[in-house]
Amino acid sequence: MWPSMEWKKDRLVLIDQRKLPLEEVYVECTHFQEVAEAIEKMVVRGAPAIGVAAGFGVVLGVKAVQTKKKLDERFPQIVNRLKDTRPTARNLFWALERMEKAYRNHSHLQLTQLKEKIEAEALAGEREDVETNKKIGERGQELIGNEESILTYCNAGALATAGYGTALGVIRAAFEKGKRIRVYASETRPFLQGARLTCWELDKEEIPVTLITDNMAGYLMKKGMISVVITGADRIAPNGDTANKIGTYTLAVLAKEHHIPFCVAAPTSTIDWNLKDGDEMMVEERPPDEVRKMGAHSITFPHLDVRNPAFDITPFQYISALITEKGAVKPPYKENLRGLEKR
Amino acid sequence: MWPSMEWKKDRLVLIDQRKLPLEEVYVECTHFQEVAEAIEKMVVRGAPAIGVAAGFGVVLGVKAVQTKKKLDERFPQIVNRLKDTRPTARNLFWALERMEKAYRNHSHLQLTQLKEKIEAEALAGEREDVETNKKIGERGQELIGNEESILTYCNAGALATAGYGTALGVIRAAFEKGKRIRVYASETRPFLQGARLTCWELDKEEIPVTLITDNMAGYLMKKGMISVVITGADRIAPNGDTANKIGTYTLAVLAKEHHIPFCVAAPTSTIDWNLKDGDEMMVEERPPDEVRKMGAHSITFPHLDVRNPAFDITPFQYISALITEKGAVKPPYKENLRGLEKR
Repeated sequence: MWPSMEWKKDRLVLIDQRKLPLEEVYVECTHFQEVAEAIEKMVVRGAPAIGVAAGFGVVLGVKAVQTKKKLDERFPQIVNRLKDTRPTARNLFWALERMEKAYRNHSHLQLTQLKEKIEAEALAGEREDVETNKKIGERGQELIGNEESILTYCNAGALATAGYGTALGVIRAAFEKGKRIRVYASETRPFLQGARLTCWELDKEEIPVTLITDNMAGYLMKKGMISVVITGADRIAPNGDTANKIGTYTLAVLAKEHHIPFCVAAPTSTIDWNLKDGDEMMVEERPPDEVRKMGAHSITFPHLDVRNPAFDITPFQYISALITEKGAVKPPYKENLRGLEKR
Repeated sequence: MWPSMEWKKDRLVLIDQRKLPLEEVYVECTHFQEVAEAIEKMVVRGAPAIGVAAGFGVVLGVKAVQTKKKLDERFPQIVNRLKDTRPTARNLFWALERMEKAYRNHSHLQLTQLKEKIEAEALAGEREDVETNKKIGERGQELIGNEESILTYCNAGALATAGYGTALGVIRAAFEKGKRIRVYASETRPFLQGARLTCWELDKEEIPVTLITDNMAGYLMKKGMISVVITGADRIAPNGDTANKIGTYTLAVLAKEHHIPFCVAAPTSTIDWNLKDGDEMMVEERPPDEVRKMGAHSITFPHLDVRNPAFDITPFQYISALITEKGAVKPPYKENLRGLEKR
């Protein structure tokens, strides 16, 4: 498994996900500001991956400070800069809150030791993310039959996490068990994570994958060519409402219309316990040129008015199961997600 | 109004719709084979437009033949070559059947006069298409309120016809009546007719238009931002089942889920009376590179497996109204489309 990122003590090396799969280019971040910009510009993307990257961003920010007094002053600024990058991904905030807690717990230590504890926390975050995803895969594959035609969306794979993936973790685990699966990957405009990242990941591991454009999903479902839909998530409300890449809601409506199970795979760190429901979630609107262009190439004229919401909210009623590292949760979500917390 | 094509007696000049709006390039066809290739490669596209272009293709084919005897032999070959270009668009076959009928009706004439009659028939086809579209617009705009937010798909505009457009004809007519409308144009992968052609047409006439990617339609509908959907059609069965650009069916499902009227605007020449229903329609599968690329630019690796159906079938149950030049038809379509034939 290739990594979406690698921590090198004095720098964070990120594979540039804007350029895959046509170019394999790496971006080196030595300053926390560079990590923040890499998250904003989607050099690294995927809710769990940006959480892990932000953890290392904090480490870089902390390492640059020379006195304890200065660090106490700088620490909240570093964390807030990283929090300001992408508003919808819950795991980003969860990871940064975890770094804040580690800082508080070890604030009595001397500067060198405190820095070590912060680095250890970021490394633990990375390690645990992979372990969590393997558990999601293991629990999720139990829902997958011996022969399935799986539609997935965006990239909820190794590249969207510290490794193994969430939705693609379920697919990997099912494949590893010898189940006969075919994956349909929806290209996921405007950033094309499906066409560029999901297809690349699956092809590398020789998991059968077919690319479609986003507008073909209804056609395939009507033809009986899809038996289950699995996506990742960026934020989950305690009632089960789920924010994920723009277009996920459309797939959920189509799945309901065709009586196809619609499953979401995500770590419990994606759940935002502060929310009542999806109406309270903020949806990031990204730059219009992402829609007017395809990567570097313009597809239409530059003054054209554009909408570019990066996410949408799928109401819990459309979701057949939420697959977490603690097991798969079925409706009623309000009660069953709470129950999960106690496991 | 700029033309999608212009007949110049010895040649057909087509605006290259693959290159708009970034480049305004014209393709000149002097041989019927060139017209057939231009249709196949989507230099010209849109069911009514390819019907009109095919008519001129027949004229070019006929003009090149030097004896009546040879023409009797060549005529079916010319027509069949043009019929073989795009299997789904009914108007193509309708236009060619019309040319065949003109040939039969005038086959007693001498060569020069026969050629003139064939040319006159193609020109009549072009002229009538614009008239038909204006009637569609006039009848269709009656369904549009004083303030509407209209989602349209692909390009059913002047470029898809000999002029004025079908779905965009309705929008044009509503705009000309002073109705306050905003159009959301879905980009329509893989060929991007929405982003490239519909936005360009509407922008030229200062009709407010906003571009979205195809996966954003559900989001906008859920937010209450769409009040009506209007698309064109490539083939309509007598029961109302409608073939149109891939992704149309997905919009119809979304419209139903959100209780939004879903309207189809098309001339009655789109109706295929030979069919029972949509199950009998052939859906063209186009080259995989259209999906792997965005115009000339690759978006993913070349050996990737791809599906590329060019159309899908929307069952009549999802359609609120079929807007034709003879008036808008509402369910039950089987009875009401038959009734239309008598008008």
